[in-house]
Amino acid sequence: MLKATIDADIFRETIDAISALVPECRLHTAEDGISTRAVDTANVAMIAITLKKEAFDSFKANASEIGVDISKMKNIFNMASKGDLISIELPDNAQKMAVSVHGYHYSITLLDTNTIRKDPNSPTINLPGKVVIAGDDLNNAIKAAAVISDKMALGINTKDQTFFMIADGDTDNIRREFSKDELKSITAMEARSLFSLDYLKDMGRVMSKAAEVEICLGIDHPVKFSFDIAGGNGHVDYLLAPRIEAD
Amino acid sequence: MLKATIDADIFRETIDAISALVPECRLHTAEDGISTRAVDTANVAMIAITLKKEAFDSFKANASEIGVDISKMKNIFNMASKGDLISIELPDNAQKMAVSVHGYHYSITLLDTNTIRKDPNSPTINLPGKVVIAGDDLNNAIKAAAVISDKMALGINTKDQTFFMIADGDTDNIRREFSKDELKSITAMEARSLFSLDYLKDMGRVMSKAAEVEICLGIDHPVKFSFDIAGGNGHVDYLLAPRIEAD
Amino acid sequence: MLKATIDADIFRETIDAISALVPECRLHTAEDGISTRAVDTANVAMIAITLKKEAFDSFKANASEIGVDISKMKNIFNMASKGDLISIELPDNAQKMAVSVHGYHYSITLLDTNTIRKDPNSPTINLPGKVVIAGDDLNNAIKAAAVISDKMALGINTKDQTFFMIADGDTDNIRREFSKDELKSITAMEARSLFSLDYLKDMGRVMSKAAEVEICLGIDHPVKFSFDIAGGNGHVDYLLAPRIEAD
Repeated sequence: MLKATIDADIFRETIDAISALVPECRLHTAEDGISTRAVDTANVAMIAITLKKEAFDSFKANASEIGVDISKMKNIFNMASKGDLISIELPDNAQKMAVSVHGYHYSITLLDTNTIRKDPNSPTINLPGKVVIAGDDLNNAIKAAAVISDKMALGINTKDQTFFMIADGDTDNIRREFSKDELKSITAMEARSLFSLDYLKDMGRVMSKAAEVEICLGIDHPVKFSFDIAGGNGHVDYLLAPRIEAD
Repeated sequence: MLKATIDADIFRETIDAISALVPECRLHTAEDGISTRAVDTANVAMIAITLKKEAFDSFKANASEIGVDISKMKNIFNMASKGDLISIELPDNAQKMAVSVHGYHYSITLLDTNTIRKDPNSPTINLPGKVVIAGDDLNNAIKAAAVISDKMALGINTKDQTFFMIADGDTDNIRREFSKDELKSITAMEARSLFSLDYLKDMGRVMSKAAEVEICLGIDHPVKFSFDIAGGNGHVDYLLAPRIEAD
Repeated sequence: MLKATIDADIFRETIDAISALVPECRLHTAEDGISTRAVDTANVAMIAITLKKEAFDSFKANASEIGVDISKMKNIFNMASKGDLISIELPDNAQKMAVSVHGYHYSITLLDTNTIRKDPNSPTINLPGKVVIAGDDLNNAIKAAAVISDKMALGINTKDQTFFMIADGDTDNIRREFSKDELKSITAMEARSLFSLDYLKDMGRVMSKAAEVEICLGIDHPVKFSFDIAGGNGHVDYLLAPRIEAD
């Protein structure tokens, strides 16, 4: 059972974060909010997102699992205007979710959760290097790198306490260093791993709206991006596996 | 013979209304203004449009019929700036129309009216249900419906005096009800018919600019949309045939 | 050797002017600035551009020739924000140019100048008709003509001292006359030549930003467009060969 109303902008922020990685997901409802955890089809990237009860204007739910087609959630934006409240209602064991917004009543057939991949386990990995950076700085560097290459190294230089991003193209390369002054904070442990820009670009678009993104890094290890949504009443973790550095 | 000057915005409004349905038309000139009546190639939708003498800055014409390629009329917009006057001149029996705007002189070869479909007769149909609604409310509901389906029912619920639009997709449906408060007026006679969203979308774009659109409806009957253009000195009727409701 | 810093907007203006004609060029560096001269692959259009030392915030160079891939120069814009300074460094005999902007370090492999067409000679032609016109007036007339044709005549009418542009389509034609009042100046010598709108469109986009464009014309001769960039510290000449007027 789920019965909730939510601001259209917060709803959009949440759906955008999920749709950067997966077209459908298992949404867990609980008394204190909703959450989902999903892996992309290639098993390269994972998202874990939670939206607390407090992110909603009203919220009532019990523990359940629903199968959601993310593209249909996007349709709801078209019907909403800025400041609109979206109301969502899903009776126990119902196959259809009723969404009301701006005079529209939208009935959405849910996906069978058996057809959606099981929730991934959260891997236990040790990522000692930590950096906190403005989301649009991060996204701009990703966009610049994507122009010349399809992969990008992220790392920390302990000597000069900088966070760096390096993209090597066939003939050219781009290096962006963020000094301590340009970062919100840095825990300077040696780190450097290589990542696919395809994934970084999609994540970057979402993260560009976050005032602060925490980046956790290791050596040839995954990267974890963490940031708040819904004014602090929601949280997103993106985990991205490294690529192998071929020479 | 036609010799007239017209504000670029009014000209654009007129051409946009026609181009939503047909790429070419027979334009009738007369002493008191111009008019056209045309049916789309599939015989599903009809437009009747009149532009009174008063919609022009200057106007002189006698009764005649000219064949107009609507896409060429659109070219004229590119040359005009906001507030420009467009001057049009067509001598008796001329094959070319001379258009002047913003220093440009554009000579357009007219179409042979024999190659354009004859004017359709205005069907005599009784559409007892009437609703007057803001054009952008109408267009927004059409756009929302188009996301999940290719057809849409329009109707009036006499019990609760509402105007409704319902789109049924394969698995989902959207319903938009307009209460008496959301409408400019309603004559609540039982009505419900199904229409192609392809046509409604094109018409909706044009109607979105009208402050008021009158909608006349019946049961499994065509719909008629009526609205003013040119600050009340012009008028458009769109007539759209219903689709058969298959289950 | 080249070591310079330049405002991002001036850099963009310069690259845009070149990229309208060629995807790569030989850039000449000298003590007093940089310059290039290039012909398009079809040998129809030529650009000669100079950027004086004064256009730069700092500039030091000796006489040399470097091969530049224009599309890579465009990448630099993505990294720059308004008001950013771009710093460029190229040691003697280096194959790589180092560009720094907004925290980015971009290393660009230069092209082998042997693979780029030799500099064209500046043809000695006599173009007696001269007109100075606002760049956006010129560009608007080009855009209007491009809607109905792929070629356009430019000329001067000595009788009424007007500059004219005429495009003849299959059935329609557009004529735009600029009277003395609409021009910055005119040297009214009889002139009329026909040009490809493909080239004019690309040039027009660049010239639309110039306050004044000088147009030099003859009879069935090339046209030369001249305008300043970089607040007068740079200059561009476009030369375009005429098309043969077929009837």
